[in-house]
Amino acid sequence: MILRLAHAELGVTDLEQARMFYVDLLGFQVYQHDGQSLYLRAAEEFDVWSLKLTLASSAGLLHMAFRVDTPDELERLEALHRKANLAYRRVPAGMEPGQGQALRVYSPDGHPIEFFHEFEEVNVYETGGLVRLPMRTTHVQHGLPPQRIDHVNLRVIDPEASLTYWRDQLAFSVSEYYVDSEGRPFTVWMRRSTSSHDVALGRYSQAATHHVAYLVDSPLSVMRTADLMADARLPHLIDFGPGRHGVSNAFYCYVRDPFGNRIEIFASDYQRDLDRPPIRWSLPDYQKQGLVWWSQEVPARFREVMPILPGDWA
Amino acid sequence: MILRLAHAELGVTDLEQARMFYVDLLGFQVYQHDGQSLYLRAAEEFDVWSLKLTLASSAGLLHMAFRVDTPDELERLEALHRKANLAYRRVPAGMEPGQGQALRVYSPDGHPIEFFHEFEEVNVYETGGLVRLPMRTTHVQHGLPPQRIDHVNLRVIDPEASLTYWRDQLAFSVSEYYVDSEGRPFTVWMRRSTSSHDVALGRYSQAATHHVAYLVDSPLSVMRTADLMADARLPHLIDFGPGRHGVSNAFYCYVRDPFGNRIEIFASDYQRDLDRPPIRWSLPDYQKQGLVWWSQEVPARFREVMPILPGDWA
Amino acid sequence: MILRLAHAELGVTDLEQARMFYVDLLGFQVYQHDGQSLYLRAAEEFDVWSLKLTLASSAGLLHMAFRVDTPDELERLEALHRKANLAYRRVPAGMEPGQGQALRVYSPDGHPIEFFHEFEEVNVYETGGLVRLPMRTTHVQHGLPPQRIDHVNLRVIDPEASLTYWRDQLAFSVSEYYVDSEGRPFTVWMRRSTSSHDVALGRYSQAATHHVAYLVDSPLSVMRTADLMADARLPHLIDFGPGRHGVSNAFYCYVRDPFGNRIEIFASDYQRDLDRPPIRWSLPDYQKQGLVWWSQEVPARFREVMPILPGDWA
Amino acid sequence: MILRLAHAELGVTDLEQARMFYVDLLGFQVYQHDGQSLYLRAAEEFDVWSLKLTLASSAGLLHMAFRVDTPDELERLEALHRKANLAYRRVPAGMEPGQGQALRVYSPDGHPIEFFHEFEEVNVYETGGLVRLPMRTTHVQHGLPPQRIDHVNLRVIDPEASLTYWRDQLAFSVSEYYVDSEGRPFTVWMRRSTSSHDVALGRYSQAATHHVAYLVDSPLSVMRTADLMADARLPHLIDFGPGRHGVSNAFYCYVRDPFGNRIEIFASDYQRDLDRPPIRWSLPDYQKQGLVWWSQEVPARFREVMPILPGDWA
Repeated sequence: MILRLAHAELGVTDLEQARMFYVDLLGFQVYQHDGQSLYLRAAEEFDVWSLKLTLASSAGLLHMAFRVDTPDELERLEALHRKANLAYRRVPAGMEPGQGQALRVYSPDGHPIEFFHEFEEVNVYETGGLVRLPMRTTHVQHGLPPQRIDHVNLRVIDPEASLTYWRDQLAFSVSEYYVDSEGRPFTVWMRRSTSSHDVALGRYSQAATHHVAYLVDSPLSVMRTADLMADARLPHLIDFGPGRHGVSNAFYCYVRDPFGNRIEIFASDYQRDLDRPPIRWSLPDYQKQGLVWWSQEVPARFREVMPILPGDWA
Repeated sequence: MILRLAHAELGVTDLEQARMFYVDLLGFQVYQHDGQSLYLRAAEEFDVWSLKLTLASSAGLLHMAFRVDTPDELERLEALHRKANLAYRRVPAGMEPGQGQALRVYSPDGHPIEFFHEFEEVNVYETGGLVRLPMRTTHVQHGLPPQRIDHVNLRVIDPEASLTYWRDQLAFSVSEYYVDSEGRPFTVWMRRSTSSHDVALGRYSQAATHHVAYLVDSPLSVMRTADLMADARLPHLIDFGPGRHGVSNAFYCYVRDPFGNRIEIFASDYQRDLDRPPIRWSLPDYQKQGLVWWSQEVPARFREVMPILPGDWA
Repeated sequence: MILRLAHAELGVTDLEQARMFYVDLLGFQVYQHDGQSLYLRAAEEFDVWSLKLTLASSAGLLHMAFRVDTPDELERLEALHRKANLAYRRVPAGMEPGQGQALRVYSPDGHPIEFFHEFEEVNVYETGGLVRLPMRTTHVQHGLPPQRIDHVNLRVIDPEASLTYWRDQLAFSVSEYYVDSEGRPFTVWMRRSTSSHDVALGRYSQAATHHVAYLVDSPLSVMRTADLMADARLPHLIDFGPGRHGVSNAFYCYVRDPFGNRIEIFASDYQRDLDRPPIRWSLPDYQKQGLVWWSQEVPARFREVMPILPGDWA
Repeated sequence: MILRLAHAELGVTDLEQARMFYVDLLGFQVYQHDGQSLYLRAAEEFDVWSLKLTLASSAGLLHMAFRVDTPDELERLEALHRKANLAYRRVPAGMEPGQGQALRVYSPDGHPIEFFHEFEEVNVYETGGLVRLPMRTTHVQHGLPPQRIDHVNLRVIDPEASLTYWRDQLAFSVSEYYVDSEGRPFTVWMRRSTSSHDVALGRYSQAATHHVAYLVDSPLSVMRTADLMADARLPHLIDFGPGRHGVSNAFYCYVRDPFGNRIEIFASDYQRDLDRPPIRWSLPDYQKQGLVWWSQEVPARFREVMPILPGDWA
């Protein structure tokens, strides 16, 4: 069983600039770094890292990873991809810091995905046996800080077709979707966790990525995102928001990192059991209050996508 | 000495609809009402009312009122207006509920202004002598609620000329202003209280009003304004925001009432002594981060004004 | 598989007084009521109700209910209780409004428990097909309002022994526990959802209940709980808090309803996968920062328990 | 005219430890430091500093300072103290960084007080003429941060007698007070600004100081104070709170610095004109909801005072 989205890897063209943006400004914590990558953790995460920033030719998605509930689940998923004739390969423990054996695949749309079970957790025991939960570090925090990774938003050519993989094979549960004027799903939100989504699929001319999202504790922290960017004289990197989506109830602020990766900082989505039926938004309703529950105009730049970066993933 | 903005009167075309919007939705409390007007109080005000909604042919400003520190101050202001050849008249106590003797005038630009000293306060003593400060009523609150009236934003033909009246005669202190490409003040923010402003004057083709502002306790409540409007299926009445102004640091959400009056719900401006020098924003800086500290587009509708409603004020 | 805590039933001695406290003051919504019971819903719940208040001889727990992921799971749980020689019975759909077939049992400690799969959800489709998620009703909210039911905190004679049932048979995952001076578990926190707990078991001289907890959106709303009680001149019903627990990171305010039921209003616990190992607090650490992360004294009244009310449950 | 409380000087026994507490943990900004003193500024202050921490033999109050509205006001205050036969002396500009000429006096109770008009403000103009208001620095903030100094709470032998000086001579306006069982004022809250108080006087066996208070933006930041202390493993330095006072409506958290100075971090008091009559709390009402609006016990340690440190002030 897939449990949840666990981490994402994004391309950056300068690791020092990446650190300034993600660590110094937004408040991510550095778990580890080498000449190629920076491994970051959000403040409430038990996993030792959830965001990997890797030197690349441009911004874009390098991979996303899901945690599964047992080691055996990797076998099952390997068989599933083999049977579906999808590229996959097993990689040994330690390919990424703190991570056990993993399975790397390409989705039918070409999105690079990793599945793993074992992953190092933050040590909650201090000297003397005193317990410190990961988030109890306000005394050394700054920036937002982000609380935990929440979802990735992808672009595919035909969301309905992609559901064969995500919903029927990987058992993602569709929480909400909206349809085009012909009644066909245009964007679908799906999850393995009980929140509104771990993955969203939106229609586009080619497979791509739209954003990676981190949860914060309240709408106040979402607004603080905009303040942080503007106070740092980077208002132009505020992509869209703050605002509220009708779909998923998310309170959002989308920002671009200095390389062009779009990060959503968001709060206030909901919890709902996985077996519940999807909520359907008609096109007029989506256009009226589904995308933006309030009344803001959506800037054209928000329609732009992030590429999937090439690699020999699976 | 003028102490602060104390109340405003706006025109509405339907008192029942006005009550639904201001009381049921936003959370103002009704102090008194008659067939002509509804008198409302915000949750943290000691004055028994601060917003008067009066049946009129359209939305617009009917008058604004300032509280002065002594009864004698009315004499001084009367003399000042007489000397300046400005229309004025004294009105007896009780012309408005809870209010003592008042002086009614027109500013040189034609804005109807009232000055008073005596005004009834909320009774803080409950049966048995128990004290209840006005804001300690969360058990019966809903909506935002607004905390207290803060400022009015006016339009005049030549803000620099209008300063002769507001700054030089009424002793308002300019906190901030921005200049046009020729270095002439385009909008000025002024105050008698120690907050960023009680009155703002912006350049326009004629004298008019832009908005009346109520303070709330935090940016969270400003965002709640947008949620309230959208949840009530009135997203089209969200005029602009939520967002942050660079000038005054105000966190704002502008809404329209059902009649077209623009109300700003805002939080987080600052305190600064009245004798401090004005802060000057150049035009490029104002356009970059002065109007909007973040990066939102300003919708064209936000440039529209509210009329000054005719009357035989002074 | 058990999914999560779904509802709780508490005894009250006056339904009208119960409505004034839970609905008028705290902001629960009424789903249904009859001469015996009041069925209430919290603002972000999809289930049509989660709190049942029933006329009884005193305050106390009448039952708690868990939702399971498939109808067949009821068979499995029935067999499990039969095999364990625990009292159980099946009850038909409709025994409680909106609920399908259910299984009612007594835990080995004598706690009345219900399992069900089918449960009516809030209709999210408005006239005209417009979607409204359950929480998008700020325009008609007041009080807190509570967001959703979160956990029950029970008392048992030997928590370690009770784990045989809860952890080994029902597959609850222990998230945290603290041990007495001999190293034996004194209180354990367990969950089927991915939050810190659905159920806690604390050692006591007899089986009992300590509190039922509702989640709110932020520590601000937790504090508002204390303001609501005090503004309503009920400060004596604030039992403990606001404060923060070290265990579970919960930001809490415990209140008593007018009948003596203890309700925890809380925010800010964490998410962690169910397969992760329990976190162990030593007794000195628990006494230092585990129970109260800050420095408040725990009032003696907080040690009191709520009874399990008698019935012919299973 | 006295405008407001402007700064306070406290004794510390280790400047490096003081910096760790006030700057690294709470988030004050360093304006200047020398071998004797550390000058700190809160995030929303226009004055370049408001807290001076000076090497001394123990914790305690070294002086408090008020800003006056004109340079001439120093003459008037000098005459007033001369006439009242109170010790005073003029000190030249620069005795403290950024400060102009000042008048130093002892109150009749022996509290060291400074009055000044000129004081350097933060430069709001960045390179290129861009404006940055002082609080728009979230990108480099951490800790709370405190927003601005608000009040000092003093102890005197007879508050009623002390009003002769504070209210009758210095023109402070009493906002609230509570009386003992004989109806005599036990504590009085007074202000020159329009908030609930700049100075409070409580009855005690000798002249002393109780705390210095800094405002934060919301109750959320007050709670964060407790989190900061506890996360830094300093829960024992949380003196009292978080909670809400009935008097002044203040949401408070009192902490001790490592030397014993008591600092109140607070939010949410009110604005009221200076000419309004004082609000009187009876002793039973004060004991019931005046001191603590909710229901917490007041720890005995909260009754302790801070000394007035000796010096040749005036």
